[in-house]
Formats: sequence, C-alpha cells, structure tokens
Amino acid sequence: MQIDLALGIDIGGTNTGLGFVDRSGTLIASTFLSTQSGETADQFVARLHQQIENLQDALPMPHRFLGIGIGAPNAHAGRGTIEQAPNLHWGEKVDFISLMKKYYPLPMAITNDANVAAAGEMIFGHARGMKHFIVITLGTGLGSGIVADGRLLYGASGFAGELGHVTVNPDGRQCACGKKGCLEAYVSATGLVRTALALLSRQYTPSPLRSMAIQEITSQRIFELARGGDAVALDAFDRTARILGLKLADAVAHVSPEAIFLTGGLAAAGELLIRPTEKYMNEFLFRVYRGTVKILPSGMPPGHGAILGAAALIINDFKIL
Amino acid sequence: MQIDLALGIDIGGTNTGLGFVDRSGTLIASTFLSTQSGETADQFVARLHQQIENLQDALPMPHRFLGIGIGAPNAHAGRGTIEQAPNLHWGEKVDFISLMKKYYPLPMAITNDANVAAAGEMIFGHARGMKHFIVITLGTGLGSGIVADGRLLYGASGFAGELGHVTVNPDGRQCACGKKGCLEAYVSATGLVRTALALLSRQYTPSPLRSMAIQEITSQRIFELARGGDAVALDAFDRTARILGLKLADAVAHVSPEAIFLTGGLAAAGELLIRPTEKYMNEFLFRVYRGTVKILPSGMPPGHGAILGAAALIINDFKIL
Repeated sequence: MQIDLALGIDIGGTNTGLGFVDRSGTLIASTFLSTQSGETADQFVARLHQQIENLQDALPMPHRFLGIGIGAPNAHAGRGTIEQAPNLHWGEKVDFISLMKKYYPLPMAITNDANVAAAGEMIFGHARGMKHFIVITLGTGLGSGIVADGRLLYGASGFAGELGHVTVNPDGRQCACGKKGCLEAYVSATGLVRTALALLSRQYTPSPLRSMAIQEITSQRIFELARGGDAVALDAFDRTARILGLKLADAVAHVSPEAIFLTGGLAAAGELLIRPTEKYMNEFLFRVYRGTVKILPSGMPPGHGAILGAAALIINDFKIL
Repeated sequence: MQIDLALGIDIGGTNTGLGFVDRSGTLIASTFLSTQSGETADQFVARLHQQIENLQDALPMPHRFLGIGIGAPNAHAGRGTIEQAPNLHWGEKVDFISLMKKYYPLPMAITNDANVAAAGEMIFGHARGMKHFIVITLGTGLGSGIVADGRLLYGASGFAGELGHVTVNPDGRQCACGKKGCLEAYVSATGLVRTALALLSRQYTPSPLRSMAIQEITSQRIFELARGGDAVALDAFDRTARILGLKLADAVAHVSPEAIFLTGGLAAAGELLIRPTEKYMNEFLFRVYRGTVKILPSGMPPGHGAILGAAALIINDFKIL
C-alpha cells in the first residue's frame, strides 16, 4: 500500500530543515543542511535537491510524493518568491518555486515562517477545527499569521499579517525596520532586553542584571531571573505582556479570532507571559469581544513544528503554485 | 419579461429607508418610515411589512423578489439578530430575521451599517473587482467593514471589524463604550470637536470657535472654518488625519487591503481629510506595504447608499439566512 507524503522545508538563516510528513502529521524522516551564505540560490537548491533525493531513497515505505511546502523568511505566497530576505544574501528577489520546479514538477507552496506556523497549528496543532485564529511567533522579532474563514490571509500585497510592525508609540523605540515604536521593538526577545534596560535606567531597584555587560543580557537570563523573583525581570515581563495585550486587543477588533496562539522562543516563558497577556488584552477589548478570545500556547512539537507546518501547506491545499 | 429585484432596508435610530434594487444597482422604488422608539420590534416589523407591500404594489414592472438585505446597528450576521442597539430600544436581543421570515419566506441577510457600506462598495461602488479592501464610516462614531478574499470578514464572534474601538492611547480620552482612548474618540464628528476643544485649551490661537457655546460647536462648523483658513480648525483636521493614518497603517499590517474607502458625514470634508490621512498612513506603513494601498472616497451615491448596500447583500449572496 502506498502512503501519501508531503515534503516540508524550513529555510532559516543558518540551517534548513526538511522532512517527509504523512496526512496525520507524523514526521516519517527528516534531515537538514546548512544554509550557506556564500552560494547563490541556484547552488543552494542544487544541494537541497541532493538532500531530498537522499531522504527519499531512505524512506522505509512505498509512497506517493504529494508536493513540497516551504517556509522561508520574506516569502511571497502568490509570486513564489523570496524577497529581500536579510539573512539569506540571495539578492533582491529569488523565484524560489521556479528553481525547485526544475527538479520536481509537483504542487508547491511557499510562505513566511509565521504563516507556516499558522498552517501547522490549523492542520496538526491546537487550532484544528478553528476557522478564525492568529499565530504570533515571538523570537528575535515578532511575526504573525492570520487565518480568517479557514484561510491564510495574504491580502492585496501578499504580505498581510505583519503585526511586528504595528505601532505602539509613533515616537517610541527605533525598530530595525526603520520605523519608530513598532510592536517588535517591545515584544520580542530583543524587546524584552530593551525593556529591562529601560527599567534599570529609570529605577534604583537592585538586580543581578546590573552586574552584567549589557550585550550579555539575554531574554533567557531575564526569564531565569523572573522565575527567581527578580523585581526588574518580573516588571519587564509584565510590561511586555501589557503592550502585547494592548495590540492583540487591536488585532481582535480587526479579525475577531477564536484564539491567539503564542509560539517561538519567548513564548516558552509560558505563564510569565501568556496569562498576563490575556488579562491585559481583556482589559483593552471592546465589550462585544470580551470572553470570545483565548490566548493559548502552540500545539506544535517544538523541534519539528516548522517542517510539519510547511508540509501542512500541501496537505491542506493552501495557495498551491 | 421579469426583472430580478432585491429589497434593501436601512434601519437607523430615527428613520428606516427601504427600496427595490435591480442587479445593476438601479434603485427602482424607495420609501421610508420612522423608526419609532415607543413600539416593540414586532410592532415595527408589522409596520415595515405594510410599507414593503405598498412599495411592491407600486412597482412598475413584473419582477422576481430575490430576497431582503438589511443594515442595522449591532446586527449579527450569523445569528440574524440585532443586539443591544442603543438607539432602537428593542431590548437585549431581537431575532430580527425570524420576525421578517413570518411575512417573507425569502433569502435574507443582515449586518451592521459599515459592512453594508462595504457590500455596496464591492458590488455597485468603487471597490468593484477588488478582493481586499476596508470601508471606514465616519459619522458620530467610526465604523468599519473589512473585505478579505472577496468576503466580508465576520470572525469568530460575528463582530469582526470594529476599528472604532482600537486603542490610540490607553490613557487617552473617555470613549462612549466605557474604554479609554478609542479611535472613534478622536476620529469621528464628535472626536473632531473634542480635538478642536483640546487645541483651544492648549493654545492662545484666536479662532471664531472661541465665541461659540461649546455645545454649539459641530464638525460642520469646524469644516467651514478650516476651508476659510482658520488655524485651529485646520490643525484639528490635521491631527485627526494623523491619528487616522496611524491606525490605518496598523489595519494594513493586519489585512493588507488594496484600498481604504472613507465614507459618512466627516468624509465629506474630502481633501481636508483624505490626502493628509494618506500621507500620514504612508509615513507609518511598514515598507512592504508602501505604495500598495490607496485612500479613496466612496463610490456610492450619498442619498441611497445604505439601501443599495443592503440590497447588495442579497444580489451577491453574502451570508444568507
């Protein structure tokens, strides 16, 4: 008997993971390769092809290869391109799907990391059965994927759902994007560190953070200190949750989701972030929405979530090219 | 030959308009009745039924009655209800579609005023051919209807798209909804008046507004003064446009529309509001969206837009009950 398998590929700045996934969300086989910055996109795809072939040869069962789903920074689902991705050094715009189609004349789909996380959550995670939800990825930056009426929202530009760049304060912190006061300048691993620094500058509250070199302060360290009861670290988490709650209340007023999932490194702070964010969001919610939205942790496995999500793009026929 | 006609009904706090509309958006016949607050919803629907019968009897051609589309404050499209509408005095929740179905066993649809405006814009107005757009209604308050992938967005609660209640400033102006700093406390006819007052309190700038009783100051008067070059009135419009531009940039980061239409009383200020709003929005937009969004005036006729929009709900098979 043949089994249906989709290939999920997760392209990151350092490594690219890939794996074959069946319709139930079981990862059958996976591997990875480095995403070297010294080569062209063509050369990268040639190496990727070799890895796919090796992986496919090693599959333990007869199978039907359904297609390839890809998560990549700055991917455009409609055009099949990766555009101006700062960590990939492949130039202005790479027609990634065309490069892949030279090797595999199969259905393909590509989108950014946060949309992949949303697709994974919907097909294999905690959003199963939900028609309206948002996934927020909290890593170095803040990404988001919005599902409305059971479909990923791409919008007219193809780039809908960039909640990292809604404005908290138009005169606020400098953001890496060139604007001021963007949400990800406050709510992200780096945002948390900046908030801790700002608190240390305003208050005399003692904290082990004062004995650290500023560039050594990480969100992980702040998390550990908060768990240990450090006042500055706890305050930094509380302020992060308040700003996230405020802007998630805005998001609800746009698309009215059933749930908002928090995932990524900073979301691992769990109860230090999720409950306070929900509390603040409810304070800022317009009354018709109160009690209609849950803040939830991701239901995807931490290691291979991105590969499963990329495969979900194919298994559920998201934007197929 | 029979002609297909949909009935559009626009329920307001004072008057209810109704009219038969053909597939091309021509209003064939219309009338109105008062929306008396002294009667129950049952009694109102009985009177409405009589008016529909009169209107139908007077129609000059044989026709097929396609169905009834209704715009009403606080309408829930999925449940067919009008809930807690402050100006209608019909109690907590009225199952309006059920009341109507007693008289007419026809396809029906109901939604709020801003969604009706969006449906009208999409079928008969300037959004024809657009899959992703937002309509902002600027009257006493601020309403919004969001179309994504060619469909009105209702979300999990059925109340998606309440941009009047996104937060400009969590410590800002009191809003009628009970929250603080909502967009409609700044950007609306009443918000414009409050902004003018705030400016008069902060500056010594002379203005004819200083000789008026505060409760006599209207958005219309500020508009006339702005056209005449009054510095306070011009500043009030500029600040209104900046706040609207800021929050529309946030809206773009959610749903990435092709266009945002401004309609309603305050939108009649035209170039005093539309161009500055677009300028500020572009300043606050994340780079991937720059140049992808237009701010446009409504393409609906001013008098009967709401009746046409309500009929469009039926003509284009929006959420049919």
